[in-house]
Amino acid sequence: MPDPTTDPSFNSFLDVAPEHPFPIQNLPYGVFTPPEDSTPRVGVAIGDHVLDLAILTENDFFSEPQIQQERPFAASSLNGFMALGSPVWTTVRERVHTLLRADTAPLRDAPSLQSQVLHDRAKVTMHLPVEVGDYTDFYSSEHHARNVGTMFRSAENALQPNWKHLPVGYHGRASSIIPSGTDVRRPCGQTRPNDDEPPVYGPSQLLDFELEMGFFTGPGNPRETPIPIEETPEHIFGFCLVNDWSARDIQGWEYVPLGPFLGKSFATTISPWVVPMTALQPFRVPSPKQEPAPLPYLQQEGNWAFDVDLEVDLQTEGMTAPTTICRSNFRHMYWTVCQQLAHHTVNGCNTRPGDLLASGTLSGPTEDSYGSMLELSWRGQDPIDLPGDDTRSFLENGDRVVLRGAAKGDGYRVGFGTAEGTIRPASCA
Amino acid sequence: MPDPTTDPSFNSFLDVAPEHPFPIQNLPYGVFTPPEDSTPRVGVAIGDHVLDLAILTENDFFSEPQIQQERPFAASSLNGFMALGSPVWTTVRERVHTLLRADTAPLRDAPSLQSQVLHDRAKVTMHLPVEVGDYTDFYSSEHHARNVGTMFRSAENALQPNWKHLPVGYHGRASSIIPSGTDVRRPCGQTRPNDDEPPVYGPSQLLDFELEMGFFTGPGNPRETPIPIEETPEHIFGFCLVNDWSARDIQGWEYVPLGPFLGKSFATTISPWVVPMTALQPFRVPSPKQEPAPLPYLQQEGNWAFDVDLEVDLQTEGMTAPTTICRSNFRHMYWTVCQQLAHHTVNGCNTRPGDLLASGTLSGPTEDSYGSMLELSWRGQDPIDLPGDDTRSFLENGDRVVLRGAAKGDGYRVGFGTAEGTIRPASCA
Repeated sequence: MPDPTTDPSFNSFLDVAPEHPFPIQNLPYGVFTPPEDSTPRVGVAIGDHVLDLAILTENDFFSEPQIQQERPFAASSLNGFMALGSPVWTTVRERVHTLLRADTAPLRDAPSLQSQVLHDRAKVTMHLPVEVGDYTDFYSSEHHARNVGTMFRSAENALQPNWKHLPVGYHGRASSIIPSGTDVRRPCGQTRPNDDEPPVYGPSQLLDFELEMGFFTGPGNPRETPIPIEETPEHIFGFCLVNDWSARDIQGWEYVPLGPFLGKSFATTISPWVVPMTALQPFRVPSPKQEPAPLPYLQQEGNWAFDVDLEVDLQTEGMTAPTTICRSNFRHMYWTVCQQLAHHTVNGCNTRPGDLLASGTLSGPTEDSYGSMLELSWRGQDPIDLPGDDTRSFLENGDRVVLRGAAKGDGYRVGFGTAEGTIRPASCA
Repeated sequence: MPDPTTDPSFNSFLDVAPEHPFPIQNLPYGVFTPPEDSTPRVGVAIGDHVLDLAILTENDFFSEPQIQQERPFAASSLNGFMALGSPVWTTVRERVHTLLRADTAPLRDAPSLQSQVLHDRAKVTMHLPVEVGDYTDFYSSEHHARNVGTMFRSAENALQPNWKHLPVGYHGRASSIIPSGTDVRRPCGQTRPNDDEPPVYGPSQLLDFELEMGFFTGPGNPRETPIPIEETPEHIFGFCLVNDWSARDIQGWEYVPLGPFLGKSFATTISPWVVPMTALQPFRVPSPKQEPAPLPYLQQEGNWAFDVDLEVDLQTEGMTAPTTICRSNFRHMYWTVCQQLAHHTVNGCNTRPGDLLASGTLSGPTEDSYGSMLELSWRGQDPIDLPGDDTRSFLENGDRVVLRGAAKGDGYRVGFGTAEGTIRPASCA
């Protein structure tokens, strides 16, 4: 049965242009405060508006016992809603869809209700949408892994022996996940620029972005109860953009043998709107061909890659407008999100509502699709050209980086908004 | 000024034997439920009793505005109390000390109050004491790092080039931290027992414990505000025992290049009582000599190692009593806890109340002080002998592992209780 909430033939009674990221087929969730009230609450983006689910609950638009009892929308995070599970997510999405459709009356013909529950999106303040319990970062783009492996080892040994057998990943730092728009201070730390000299302390000289996407889990699995791969889709609430800022020189010195640590943990930026798994269903495309075939616990039928166009814009202090330095796609993952989640829990590891599992850098096959400065400038050997004779090997102070993403349908798009941040100078004592 | 709460000359009006882990000089915090009430609350262990801080608060024993407002003891975790910072920790500790002393009357001479606020420790249920936001595991015992490096590389290249310049660590999994006494199911996962064959799925064959200690942070530091090393002590709330269970075969196959992941994330056991930093002050001993001298941000005056005896007991299904297989000490850390915390935040990484920073395996210099089966059996080449002709290379089903720790004073000890768990058979689909 086709899902009415993703049907392209429906329109909202609110005007939403065809290029707009937030049509009625998207309905992403976020946490916001309106200008007149400092209490954070959960909303849904629709065109240039935000629908206030907390006030809708107060007005008895959600009669479900779980929503009446838990009040998940009068909250400063989506975690409570994520905990309720996919049947409740479906109910809420369908209710919101009905409310916003052009052919239904309850909100369309109720100007007084509209004034209560619809906020001007330009005027609200967006917050971190999720209280992330654990943050995992994978390494699932083969192009990215090959690029980095070629740079630091050789083309012949670019992929480690395990890479095609399991989705390699590591635990990231949850505390330093920040919402889009938050400035990022260049980190201080220990590096060893010269192998023949002792290490030094100071500002990172090789600051980078990483173009990634991530998904949030819910309702979670108990410890010692793995999620079989065929059940993983109902444990995925939705998706966001992730910029896993990286200090390559700190990372390069510290990471052997236990992996990335301070080279990553100073900041990770995510987009404020979480696009539901359901909204991306029409954009599923064939999963990558995997050779050798993975072990049975990682085998899955069907199309589980997602066709989401991704872009990275860079604007330096000397530029009057941003320029796009990377065009990639979420489908450039060798390992699917379902495989990532099945693998993550196969040892009995529990996930909780609001855990974030990110893709790793989503580099594509072509040089203009590489998702990091490390790859775009090939380790600084080949700086990229910017408008006005400027060049970049890594990020400099004042640089603004904007990630954007959109799944493109016929006459509409399901967008992710942006994940952006500006580099501020280091302050090293 | 000597701290009265650690003065060995004080006794409690409650009988506490000299060998007891919880004398009045200790006063560790935990979260418990008494048998007659299912509401978790914060308590202090004193001898064979638990002092109920939630009921004491109701009885106005804590008049501090922060405690009156926040009610941190009527809580299912210590996080709220940890957030209040070291001046409040000191106040509460001194108040509790006064209340429990033999030479003061308020509780000693009030049998009715005693019956309200003192629970029989044998009858309460202990819970996970902290809601861990982020869990970091270091690798700070040189003996352990050299043992593992020698095994997998060579004695000449045992330590990686960075090891003596910074406390190497990685992000662990917070969701699967469990309280002492919880069984641990042998994890399933992907391993590659034979390099010439494809990897296989099944139960881990090389299950191990790791003897560690950990500390909890509070009140935390804002993002982009590192904690200078001289301020680190006031950001350390207290200590617990940590068993970082490890599946060596899963870990060995997955960990290149991003570090340990599923080989660790199935379970990490911690002891239920958190021993305050203050209680360990009398047991500070000279920090290890560090050569080469670390960078200035890691340099620190004074004695910052802690003399805490640690033991690991093993009891197999065939044994009628446990046997001690490891005797080590918390002082076997090359990097101090202060250096760990200063390093962790030097890049601007924020910590929050209740973050856990663990030591890594605390192996000592002698073969009987190695803190893991990997080292005790030297990668399985030299199985350890157990009573009754049994031997062990790695853990088998039914094995019970008990970590114990105590700082030993003159006529008293500051103990940590135990962190224990029993291995249950795998259940691999």
